[in-house]
Amino acid sequence: MNDKKIKKKNLVKKSQNISKWYNEVVSRAKLVDQSEVKGAMIMRANSFEIWEQIKKVLDGWFKDYGVRNYYFPMLIPHYLLEKEKEHLKGFSPELAVVTHAGGKDLKEPYVLRPTSETIIYKTFADWIESYRDLPFLINQWCNIVRWEKRTYPFLRTSEFLWQEGHTAHKTKEQAKNMTLRALKWYEKIYKDYLAISSYVGIKSEQEKFAGAKKTYSIEIVVPNGKALQAATSHNLGDNFSKVFNINFLDKKGKKNHPFQTSWGLSTRSIGGLILVHGDDAGLIIPPKIAPNQVVIITVPCKDKKDQERVEKYSKEIMAELEKNNFRVILDSDNNHGFGFKINNWELKGIPLRLEIGANEVKNKKLTLARRDNFKKQEVERDQLINEVTSKLEMIQNNLLKKSQDIRNNMTIEVDDYEEFKKIAQGSKKFIRAFWCGNKKCENNIKHETKFSTRVLEIDQLDKKEKGKCIYCGRKADHKWLFAQSY
Amino acid sequence: MNDKKIKKKNLVKKSQNISKWYNEVVSRAKLVDQSEVKGAMIMRANSFEIWEQIKKVLDGWFKDYGVRNYYFPMLIPHYLLEKEKEHLKGFSPELAVVTHAGGKDLKEPYVLRPTSETIIYKTFADWIESYRDLPFLINQWCNIVRWEKRTYPFLRTSEFLWQEGHTAHKTKEQAKNMTLRALKWYEKIYKDYLAISSYVGIKSEQEKFAGAKKTYSIEIVVPNGKALQAATSHNLGDNFSKVFNINFLDKKGKKNHPFQTSWGLSTRSIGGLILVHGDDAGLIIPPKIAPNQVVIITVPCKDKKDQERVEKYSKEIMAELEKNNFRVILDSDNNHGFGFKINNWELKGIPLRLEIGANEVKNKKLTLARRDNFKKQEVERDQLINEVTSKLEMIQNNLLKKSQDIRNNMTIEVDDYEEFKKIAQGSKKFIRAFWCGNKKCENNIKHETKFSTRVLEIDQLDKKEKGKCIYCGRKADHKWLFAQSY
Repeated sequence: MNDKKIKKKNLVKKSQNISKWYNEVVSRAKLVDQSEVKGAMIMRANSFEIWEQIKKVLDGWFKDYGVRNYYFPMLIPHYLLEKEKEHLKGFSPELAVVTHAGGKDLKEPYVLRPTSETIIYKTFADWIESYRDLPFLINQWCNIVRWEKRTYPFLRTSEFLWQEGHTAHKTKEQAKNMTLRALKWYEKIYKDYLAISSYVGIKSEQEKFAGAKKTYSIEIVVPNGKALQAATSHNLGDNFSKVFNINFLDKKGKKNHPFQTSWGLSTRSIGGLILVHGDDAGLIIPPKIAPNQVVIITVPCKDKKDQERVEKYSKEIMAELEKNNFRVILDSDNNHGFGFKINNWELKGIPLRLEIGANEVKNKKLTLARRDNFKKQEVERDQLINEVTSKLEMIQNNLLKKSQDIRNNMTIEVDDYEEFKKIAQGSKKFIRAFWCGNKKCENNIKHETKFSTRVLEIDQLDKKEKGKCIYCGRKADHKWLFAQSY
Repeated sequence: MNDKKIKKKNLVKKSQNISKWYNEVVSRAKLVDQSEVKGAMIMRANSFEIWEQIKKVLDGWFKDYGVRNYYFPMLIPHYLLEKEKEHLKGFSPELAVVTHAGGKDLKEPYVLRPTSETIIYKTFADWIESYRDLPFLINQWCNIVRWEKRTYPFLRTSEFLWQEGHTAHKTKEQAKNMTLRALKWYEKIYKDYLAISSYVGIKSEQEKFAGAKKTYSIEIVVPNGKALQAATSHNLGDNFSKVFNINFLDKKGKKNHPFQTSWGLSTRSIGGLILVHGDDAGLIIPPKIAPNQVVIITVPCKDKKDQERVEKYSKEIMAELEKNNFRVILDSDNNHGFGFKINNWELKGIPLRLEIGANEVKNKKLTLARRDNFKKQEVERDQLINEVTSKLEMIQNNLLKKSQDIRNNMTIEVDDYEEFKKIAQGSKKFIRAFWCGNKKCENNIKHETKFSTRVLEIDQLDKKEKGKCIYCGRKADHKWLFAQSY
């Protein structure tokens, strides 16, 4: 949205209309802007810097594990995509196609990568020769194009940014472990950094990635009860290594197909963060992922000398915080009123605010205001680092706690299909219910309620319960999570 | 190239055939691989990690200066490109075009960004309102598509990675300063990190960026005497702010067009690094930009106990180096002979090698081998950090010195056009010669010799000399640098 057109009136309340609230917050907090390209957003610095934080954390973990970064072309010849039939079928409707380049019509069209399995695995066949080359662990950070009909900023856009890990292993077991390893990273970054409690589990056969043996997923419970698939990790088995003719010689000199995995997390994660943590005042960014953890706001003074003292004091405090590795921003702008400044930084979700005026300078104090609960407290100047450290920790923990509460409160066990339908029609929730595993029941439920299977939770995989399918009443071993997808 | 097909024979000599040498080095050192896409390369970890180092350094400087990272869509509607006529004309022949998406023909085609001025400045018009919004300083790290006819890995590829800075300023003067500020960053990263001495100057009217008022450029002298344009910084004046209707209100409330700049450095920089520093043994990466600055190689031992001691000692040394922030890799592979291992790490250009065998362990010593001059030296174990620090510094300085020598030795002052033509036909050099500034002379010289104007050096801009144009003999104020472009 054009900044000039953003109305100065209050935000709509999140609880009243979360969709409208979301669209207003992403514009007003200057996270995104609409572009001239259908369904593609412009990521402004305020959101791109969150992505940089996410990237830094994940990239560090990947590298520590021995995953190396590569970069593959974004154009994929259509014939490569045709090699794995399921994969092609899954992505065909969403492709954007280059038919013309350098002033000429192309003989063979290129598609903009909707994911890079095909172009990467074509090359794996050249690179992998022997068991010594395995495991082969790579990743790339890149842009992806999927031509979606309905789009929302971050959640579903025709272009987005992500990382995609691609690996090859000697054994099935190792591939499975890698799939789960990636899933753990995703669960951890959501829990420990984005302060989001998720459901982690396995997708149904129908909902899995086109071309995978098994797909695992992180599912976020949005406060309106809907589900956001927030990252996925695929055990590809030897599906792709067969069609792309990837082979390795084992110790005995025998040729084998390696077992593969792929896994990705995208800028959609920022949408999850906004939806889960935001409130009626705007965005709330968890301290561990916040590009700016602390904003120092100067209180305007009538006396010019006071003003100078306030600014000097603020800069000293900023320097001390930065020295201690906090990410800090200083707002000493006097063109706007104090109230406007507070609203502005609350809107943008900076977790901790330090207010500094003439009184604070005189008494060697600071006023701290938490973004998560709006509580203000005056503290001693010499307690700066201790207080900021502990407040940021408290905010981080409190946000996670709130997210856990949302998750738990928005999940309900149901064993009656009439009740299931009522929830689907009314205010939505995650429903945990027995399902027999039959595709027909899954399809009928989706058709009748818009609720799809989200996951079978990972800690339930090895347990068998005795139950009856909520739809057909036949024997069911597991309770699955159902919800309406974002 | 398929790894399996790379012949085990020696590299061609750089001095014999630099083009062939280059292609062999980029394959053998596993920097790139060919892809299924015409002219697009796959960046393997060994080159992508160099790009990550470059990115880290530049990104830090940009951020310290107040430039913030954004991300804009990679698709640009064709009508946006049409707004600035010169810009369109310049990029038209190289465009790749999406005509089909989501199963439908598009009404309006999208081009893959050949650069992002148009899509970014369309939005600047929405974001910039008042003088308080200026300077507006943004950057993006992204992929770029230009459909080139002749391609070389890194130097000219149909897709490449770069950063593009885009700024808007209140005054002409401020825009000029920003253009020069970016140019300084580029000169500095080449000199202080990539150890490459360049020519820095202004492009001729014909060679400037399509849509710019002035283009400044960093030109690298390749050892074969050819020129590599290694980064550019454009003073756009108000060319784009006029056509995209970008306005700001000044303090008096008057509407003005801001003055703009754009500047970029790409993965081509890696090509420059390879060409300038490589030798007959392969790549040489300057320590300050090397993803791995030190490789520790274990010498195979006959005695198993010795082998264990060697490995333990090597790991201790690696840990100590890492603790001191060196980037280190350990090669304790015993499947390959010691000679093979040495050749392999020389090929990959790791600046410093530590050899550790039973003798080193027994005598508490280390053997250090410099990649730049192959000199070996035994040093005391307790001098590890001092020795590695000083050796890496010496290597960095030596590489820069060599690059300065190449630059100076490959540049010649010429005042006679017959001599100019001889150099152009024979072994190439950079030629410094008077030129009157007339487009016709420039075109004729290019047509007759393939030599184009590279730059008028920046320290010559304000000096006026008395000379005669090397082509037409008319009055000329400046000596320009001419060379054959890569």
